[in-house]
Amino acid sequence: MEEKNKKTEDIVSMLTARDFASLRRALCDENPADIAELFEEVAKEQYPLVFRLLPKELAAEVFVEMDSDVQKIVIGAFSDYELQQVLDELYLDDTVDLIEEMPANVVSRILRNCSPADRQMINQLLRYPKDSAGSIMTTEYVNLKQDMTVEDAFSLIRRDAIDKETIYTCYVTAPNRKLIGIVSAKTLMISPLDKKIGDIMEQNVISVNTQTDKEEVGFLFGKYSFLALPVVDTEGRMLGIITFDDAMDVISEETEEDFAVMAAITPSEGDASYLKTSAFSVFKARIPWLLLLTLSATFTGLIISSFEASLSACVVLTAFIPMLMGTGGNCGSQSSVTVIRGLSLGEIEFHDIFTVLWKELRVSLLCAAVLAAMTFVKIFLVDYLLLHVLEPAEMLTVPLTVCLTMCVTVVSAKLIGCALPILVKKLGLDPAVMASPFITTIIDALSLAVYFAFAVWLIPGIS
Amino acid sequence: MEEKNKKTEDIVSMLTARDFASLRRALCDENPADIAELFEEVAKEQYPLVFRLLPKELAAEVFVEMDSDVQKIVIGAFSDYELQQVLDELYLDDTVDLIEEMPANVVSRILRNCSPADRQMINQLLRYPKDSAGSIMTTEYVNLKQDMTVEDAFSLIRRDAIDKETIYTCYVTAPNRKLIGIVSAKTLMISPLDKKIGDIMEQNVISVNTQTDKEEVGFLFGKYSFLALPVVDTEGRMLGIITFDDAMDVISEETEEDFAVMAAITPSEGDASYLKTSAFSVFKARIPWLLLLTLSATFTGLIISSFEASLSACVVLTAFIPMLMGTGGNCGSQSSVTVIRGLSLGEIEFHDIFTVLWKELRVSLLCAAVLAAMTFVKIFLVDYLLLHVLEPAEMLTVPLTVCLTMCVTVVSAKLIGCALPILVKKLGLDPAVMASPFITTIIDALSLAVYFAFAVWLIPGIS
Repeated sequence: MEEKNKKTEDIVSMLTARDFASLRRALCDENPADIAELFEEVAKEQYPLVFRLLPKELAAEVFVEMDSDVQKIVIGAFSDYELQQVLDELYLDDTVDLIEEMPANVVSRILRNCSPADRQMINQLLRYPKDSAGSIMTTEYVNLKQDMTVEDAFSLIRRDAIDKETIYTCYVTAPNRKLIGIVSAKTLMISPLDKKIGDIMEQNVISVNTQTDKEEVGFLFGKYSFLALPVVDTEGRMLGIITFDDAMDVISEETEEDFAVMAAITPSEGDASYLKTSAFSVFKARIPWLLLLTLSATFTGLIISSFEASLSACVVLTAFIPMLMGTGGNCGSQSSVTVIRGLSLGEIEFHDIFTVLWKELRVSLLCAAVLAAMTFVKIFLVDYLLLHVLEPAEMLTVPLTVCLTMCVTVVSAKLIGCALPILVKKLGLDPAVMASPFITTIIDALSLAVYFAFAVWLIPGIS
Repeated sequence: MEEKNKKTEDIVSMLTARDFASLRRALCDENPADIAELFEEVAKEQYPLVFRLLPKELAAEVFVEMDSDVQKIVIGAFSDYELQQVLDELYLDDTVDLIEEMPANVVSRILRNCSPADRQMINQLLRYPKDSAGSIMTTEYVNLKQDMTVEDAFSLIRRDAIDKETIYTCYVTAPNRKLIGIVSAKTLMISPLDKKIGDIMEQNVISVNTQTDKEEVGFLFGKYSFLALPVVDTEGRMLGIITFDDAMDVISEETEEDFAVMAAITPSEGDASYLKTSAFSVFKARIPWLLLLTLSATFTGLIISSFEASLSACVVLTAFIPMLMGTGGNCGSQSSVTVIRGLSLGEIEFHDIFTVLWKELRVSLLCAAVLAAMTFVKIFLVDYLLLHVLEPAEMLTVPLTVCLTMCVTVVSAKLIGCALPILVKKLGLDPAVMASPFITTIIDALSLAVYFAFAVWLIPGIS
């Protein structure tokens, strides 16, 4: 890290010293992703200057890695010729991503400067639904025929490789464009030059449809660790491929979404990092949930008010409310988070619901027993012997009430916590919305009701 | 999915029908990962039977994908010859993973059946610390020399490719074994056969040390979307490579750890899926945290007890405790989860702490204002007009107390929630342990103290 910051400093100082020769040399040694990061260190006015120093191909690679706001500024400074240069180097799926990020006027300028063929492709790609496999695929892949020889394949790759995002998996299609097999570059390299592609190709190919959900695509990459995944239409005709870097982006997006929703935050679109989002948009992402949850806490309030009489008869009961609610919340979120992840990783499915419930039941009984026992001891030692907040008369009834409530809370918390996400997913909603915050609110109300019920039943003088 | 289940059924029925010819054919069409999953459908006794049907190479690929318990049974049924066959096909890093999972007696059997050269390598790999880059690297990579021609490179690859996990990035080393450059298979394919490797190799190589933390490795793969990353010793001598599939495993492990710890669960070692873990081990992973959190709730209890007098003087105050604590908890976890992810994704670092605090301060003030306003209205409409739980005399003092407490709670919750994880990480601990549950407990105590302080100050008759 220090070393990296050092480099950045050097480069920035070269820039201020206007020593462009060494600056260009320094930049060429850097990795595109790092150069893109570097733009955050230099003044907006200098973006185009720095960018123009980069050699054509590197420039494109850097451009892809930039934040959309930086891209906008750079494009703004481009002459149409420069823009064409860059677009020329971009892979189609990156151009599409770019277009999706840019304002209308920039988009039309980009499309104007694309080759007609590309423009047609782009328009087609833009038509796929937002979260579909089609929206993240590229139409540039190595397309082989089964009667080609390995040698033909090599010369074809040698000719086209430059514009293909990956050449490590080649796709074999029939004359009717149906996908009939794949050949890895590895297989090509170790096969004799005169062998027919048809004889060395792998025929059992896993592919997805343009409509397949992005999430499913990420799941397949995670499971099979593919380098690329072919996308076909309903007739099995080859349309494009999804490369593993795009799949990795999908996977991490999904994960961050889970984290966000579990913390009761509206997930941010795309990869806007926290430090770059304005305080107000952070506020907007958080406040709706807070309002909802705070309002829903009204019920717990109501339950308490309706037992005001009982409470004033035995105020000490109040002291245990936070502990009971806290424990319930924690037990619930333990189960819900576990199940929610199981669901998004495809480990748990709807038909597992009873297995899950049965397991959570046993777990919760164990937890309940241990927690109740500890609480009983703690009340006796701390509240009774040490702090005397309990009257001798209450010494049995109150802890009994608390511990029984604890047991009911823990068990119901874990059962609700594991069942709700599965049911919600079955309804076609994101299970993560049923994460801790909501379950906690439900448990809170429940545990209080149980608490007071036990109190009325067990503690003399409470009605 | 249906289609997949269909396949599974067919295969299982072929097995029961003992129609091994078609079974073998059916299996050969499947992807290794799917075949491995299939073993969960068949009886333990049949594992070896099914496994022996697989052709040598496929068998090894399937073996790698199996759960360790399945692997153990299969190995148990192997003759030494069969074991050698499989080990022969395995990549070294997979053999090492296997050894780490197996009981001592199996391990010694495995080592006995490895070639002496492999055994030496394995022992060396086993010596690297558990979470280090060295522990997940493989020593099998394509090693080129600067003065080779592209043609030499191809023939070398053609000779060795079979035993190399990836041939798509080749590593160029000097006679002293120092790593001096990399060449991608793509570059090789598009370069003239007589070109010297030294002229086409990429010289600015990103590499890691054997001691580098796995997490850092995952981060680099995520950032640069590498196919493989070279591992060098302190003198920059080439030792091995980490391939992207292993890196992806690391990334998902780290993520699941974050989820677990955020839900106050001890993260499970390796990839033990929820459905496969016994209820008791689930219990063991959860109970310590529950005990800790429940005990720590004692403080909140103490605070309440010490204000018993005030509460009995104005019992209605109790009704708002759940809402205040709930809101505090949610605000806290919103900030903490955001910051914790930022930290593990490397977006947020220690020096950003003031930027983060300043942002959270503004966000929290906005949230506080909105929440307090809504609460005031809600108390007036619901508790006063609708339910009459408030006396006219209390109509100003109580809501004022609640809303002021709300403001203080929200602001402090967000500030504590964002600052604690950063500080904890600075101390070299996992920031996730400072996630919601703990912060919630802290906020609970804080908000109650503030609540009662305001009550004593604002509400007449409370002391």
